[in-house]
Amino acid sequence: MKISNTPTIRRMPTYLHRLFRLRMSGQEWVSCADLAQYMGIPHIMVRKDIAMTGLPGNRRHGFKVVDLIDAILRLLGWDKASSATLIGAGSLGAALLGFDDFQSYNFRIESVFDSSPDKIGRVIHGHEIFDLADIRKRLKLAPPKVGIICVPAVGAQLVADILISLGIKYIWNFSNVCLNVPPGVIVQREVIAGGLAVLFAKINKAESGDTDPVEE
Amino acid sequence: MKISNTPTIRRMPTYLHRLFRLRMSGQEWVSCADLAQYMGIPHIMVRKDIAMTGLPGNRRHGFKVVDLIDAILRLLGWDKASSATLIGAGSLGAALLGFDDFQSYNFRIESVFDSSPDKIGRVIHGHEIFDLADIRKRLKLAPPKVGIICVPAVGAQLVADILISLGIKYIWNFSNVCLNVPPGVIVQREVIAGGLAVLFAKINKAESGDTDPVEE
Repeated sequence: MKISNTPTIRRMPTYLHRLFRLRMSGQEWVSCADLAQYMGIPHIMVRKDIAMTGLPGNRRHGFKVVDLIDAILRLLGWDKASSATLIGAGSLGAALLGFDDFQSYNFRIESVFDSSPDKIGRVIHGHEIFDLADIRKRLKLAPPKVGIICVPAVGAQLVADILISLGIKYIWNFSNVCLNVPPGVIVQREVIAGGLAVLFAKINKAESGDTDPVEE
Repeated sequence: MKISNTPTIRRMPTYLHRLFRLRMSGQEWVSCADLAQYMGIPHIMVRKDIAMTGLPGNRRHGFKVVDLIDAILRLLGWDKASSATLIGAGSLGAALLGFDDFQSYNFRIESVFDSSPDKIGRVIHGHEIFDLADIRKRLKLAPPKVGIICVPAVGAQLVADILISLGIKYIWNFSNVCLNVPPGVIVQREVIAGGLAVLFAKINKAESGDTDPVEE
């Protein structure tokens, strides 16, 4: 299974979000046109994205909602449960803890750490904040699959080093810095300003009269 | 100027972040190899990205840091000042208000609105939170260029409609829903889970022994 097209991968959670709602409303089938209209992207883009899942469609009805959900979850490896620890319970960390969809991805943030005395012991969206100084003691027996780094840039490398020393190989990095990691460790860095750059690319094109769309 | 490659556009703020630091440390020149090492991506990818700016490099020294900063800012339209209003001062909104780099992009969040009585009047990262009910009164004479929507999904369409009625044509949407907007309005939707999908695509590839990199 070859998925190297990043914009396609990035769109998958949006399809899922829509499909979960359709399932909840009792809708059995969905067409590419439906999804294209919801997302405001060309029909052909949706068709290509869904083709990545390998799910065969029905010529008349489109795709079965539950089958398409399963196919996307499988494509992303979200059919299996994954655990994570989150470091840094500031505003961004709190936003992630409040993100409802993770549950549908079988992705569970099972521990949260911070080093600030006014955060330790507090509960955010049902998660107790533990002292970062205890992280080794708490995680060494069963380290989670993914480490989520939401600390300020200055502390991010140190946190990454700790996570890696605990055997965590996959890092979702929200700090505003690129991390140095050994081979075999995979980092996905989120750059909030990346989206702003894409927005401005779209604006610049529109204002220059270029109607060729910028892909999401 | 044709920029339709979204991964390239998304990387530009990361180059900028690095280049600002180099400039601050007094470094005059930077090579593609430097930037590639910092970001952990292939050298050739950096070379192609920078080629988008049209800036000619020096065979021996690479690129002048200050010139490359200017070229990227110009490419993104960030050489000109832009203003924004942010709606929804929850944890995600607060995280955006604390994001230092916007200033370097000449991008200024000049007003913040919320409808929650316990947020109105508070100050977050130097921004006073205004009552959403007053938005028309406050913005009608000089609507900002960009509206940033950080409200929960259920209120997002209403907020978008208000912004559009005020003449705001560009929307950076952090709510977990796709917006219905009239032609001419440009929306950039941020999907936090999009990055998690990309992380898992990388993980799945690595665990299946596929060494072909997933592009950022």
